[in-house]
Amino acid sequence: MRTQVAIIGGGPSGLLLSQLLHTKGIASVVLERRSRDYVLSRIRAGILETGFVNLMREAGVAERMDRESYVHDGTVISYGNEEFEIDFKALTGTSVIVYGQTEVTRDLYDAAEADEGRVITEVSGVMPHDLETDAPYVTFMKDGKVIRLDCDYVAGCDGFHGVSRQQIPEDKRREFEKTYPFGWLGVLSETPPVHDELIYANSERGFALCSMRHANLSRYYVQCPLADKPEDWSDERFWQELKRRIPAHHAENLVTGPSIEKSIAPLRSFVCEPMRWGRLFLCGDAAHIVPPTGAKGLNTAASDVHYLYHGLVQFYEEKDNEGLDRYSEKALARIWKAERFSWWMTTLLHRFPDQTDFDLRIQRADLEFLRSNEAAQRVLAENYVGLPY
Amino acid sequence: MRTQVAIIGGGPSGLLLSQLLHTKGIASVVLERRSRDYVLSRIRAGILETGFVNLMREAGVAERMDRESYVHDGTVISYGNEEFEIDFKALTGTSVIVYGQTEVTRDLYDAAEADEGRVITEVSGVMPHDLETDAPYVTFMKDGKVIRLDCDYVAGCDGFHGVSRQQIPEDKRREFEKTYPFGWLGVLSETPPVHDELIYANSERGFALCSMRHANLSRYYVQCPLADKPEDWSDERFWQELKRRIPAHHAENLVTGPSIEKSIAPLRSFVCEPMRWGRLFLCGDAAHIVPPTGAKGLNTAASDVHYLYHGLVQFYEEKDNEGLDRYSEKALARIWKAERFSWWMTTLLHRFPDQTDFDLRIQRADLEFLRSNEAAQRVLAENYVGLPY
Repeated sequence: MRTQVAIIGGGPSGLLLSQLLHTKGIASVVLERRSRDYVLSRIRAGILETGFVNLMREAGVAERMDRESYVHDGTVISYGNEEFEIDFKALTGTSVIVYGQTEVTRDLYDAAEADEGRVITEVSGVMPHDLETDAPYVTFMKDGKVIRLDCDYVAGCDGFHGVSRQQIPEDKRREFEKTYPFGWLGVLSETPPVHDELIYANSERGFALCSMRHANLSRYYVQCPLADKPEDWSDERFWQELKRRIPAHHAENLVTGPSIEKSIAPLRSFVCEPMRWGRLFLCGDAAHIVPPTGAKGLNTAASDVHYLYHGLVQFYEEKDNEGLDRYSEKALARIWKAERFSWWMTTLLHRFPDQTDFDLRIQRADLEFLRSNEAAQRVLAENYVGLPY
Repeated sequence: MRTQVAIIGGGPSGLLLSQLLHTKGIASVVLERRSRDYVLSRIRAGILETGFVNLMREAGVAERMDRESYVHDGTVISYGNEEFEIDFKALTGTSVIVYGQTEVTRDLYDAAEADEGRVITEVSGVMPHDLETDAPYVTFMKDGKVIRLDCDYVAGCDGFHGVSRQQIPEDKRREFEKTYPFGWLGVLSETPPVHDELIYANSERGFALCSMRHANLSRYYVQCPLADKPEDWSDERFWQELKRRIPAHHAENLVTGPSIEKSIAPLRSFVCEPMRWGRLFLCGDAAHIVPPTGAKGLNTAASDVHYLYHGLVQFYEEKDNEGLDRYSEKALARIWKAERFSWWMTTLLHRFPDQTDFDLRIQRADLEFLRSNEAAQRVLAENYVGLPY
């Protein structure tokens, strides 16, 4: 088999890259370990930056998104019973939309289906080879057979645990990491969201987030100890805890119901440098992870896709390597700003076991300064809706 | 003896408060442990916010300051050989001035001299009494005699080590503190400043600051281990180290010369709550300390003086206690914002012994974001020129 770009990983970044290349007549093959149904069952982020939305439009897969997504012109930040709004629209002229990663992925799978063989699911043993030559290839197993896929370039979109990053020799890559001493317990429930915007809540009992997927599907989170397990949290205990962490008037309005999903995720900041190795380009979680505070995970993946897509188009249409040669540098410059923002939002809103009384007062001063200062609100808003590519 | 306001401490905040009250016909007596010459020999801060300048004008002691001070419309921030400017004037419409604390204090002593007995220096054993009654008084020794000073109110302007704060019973006050694992080695030299604005320098070797008092008096600092002593640092070693921490083109222009003062200061963040106890009001270092990064020390003292002065005027002119009753709350709200800013500037620019590689990248991302984002620059500028009272 031969293609122009072999894409390892059929999550949203791999699929979006493939779809974008397809619009330019650049051939790609996406290799995904899991089944389509499995990928579509993963519940992930739901807040998309304008830059992401524009890429979906450019890829010609935005029709349902434009119809069904919700525009969020702002967000609420609370501490105890105090709350204030960050008005993205007024501060930046733009907004974010709520449209689940599951829906993005579904739209991309649907679009790819028109194009047989572009996405190959349920493959195993994926391995890229000869990345430092100009004739790289990827091998994988499908239905018991080993298949070789020759290509010009390899896009590593296979997530934090994928094989792509491991192809960069250990002495040639640097990994930067911070783990946070808590997790997020998330609950999905078929209830109307407590508020029409997200509520990021700092409380004495820890962080909480009120989010949503649509008018009758709410997504709530509470900060919890890393050692906790979902089964430690009955629905009742979860709702009680959530109510204690958000302002009272919201708690009174909270509609509770049975959870249809409940899970605990650790929080991690991670960046691998460089993001290019020979003919391999890392995208998304394969190269970097952010804690979910600030909703940058999927959006940083889109940022990489943007740079890689434009670099590949520049190469195939103009025989110019500049975009590909500068991919790592350009992608990382924006990634580190998103890492900074996600780390800052996490630090602003969570309780840390080693916080001193002074640290807690500084956290509160940070919140009160943010509440009172327009420039500080604009910094948050510009980061939240997405810094320019 | 009797006065309306007994002021413990004859540094700039005590003297400024006394001078302001004097313009309104409110009597005060300032008690200072040291001699006037000793106080005037202390070399301290040199950057004054507009709010401070306005208080000096309101006190009628701004003539020399307005003539001899230097307006700074911006400041330089560097990291390695990279540098950028924060343009206070363009971002906020206002500026700061360079005018040494020594000069401020001299002007205030000169003004007070017209008014015999308002400032009593070289007193000892100062002790406030009956602060929780409506007849407080202060005792002290002068020329071997114990003197009792009856008053309506006591202003505690006697610094971090003074007696005033200790009058608040331990179980009624909370102290918040952070010490930083490094100090500032400062050198004063009769040389022209390397640049016409301050340079705040982040470097791999640690922080440095290029500051000045006037056209032929430079003030430079380098971050150093707390265990260092001034005698560990020859002038030559100091200049060499400074040159390695600032951008090369500045290092080339640096005029060196013999140091006329050299000292090491630790860095500390500290706040005492509340700032009022009965008839005692704490001002300045008696209640709070900031690390010097961002030049907030003297300016936060002025902030307290502003609130206390207006509260006292409201009481004496209108028989209204509101300003005095809300003094602690109002003063602390602004102090915590200045604490936040000073802590942030310190964190942004110094090397910390426990910084991980991730932390260093975040620090760099913070600098690069600041360099590239106007709203972030405005946040810094608004804090630097002084948040509104």
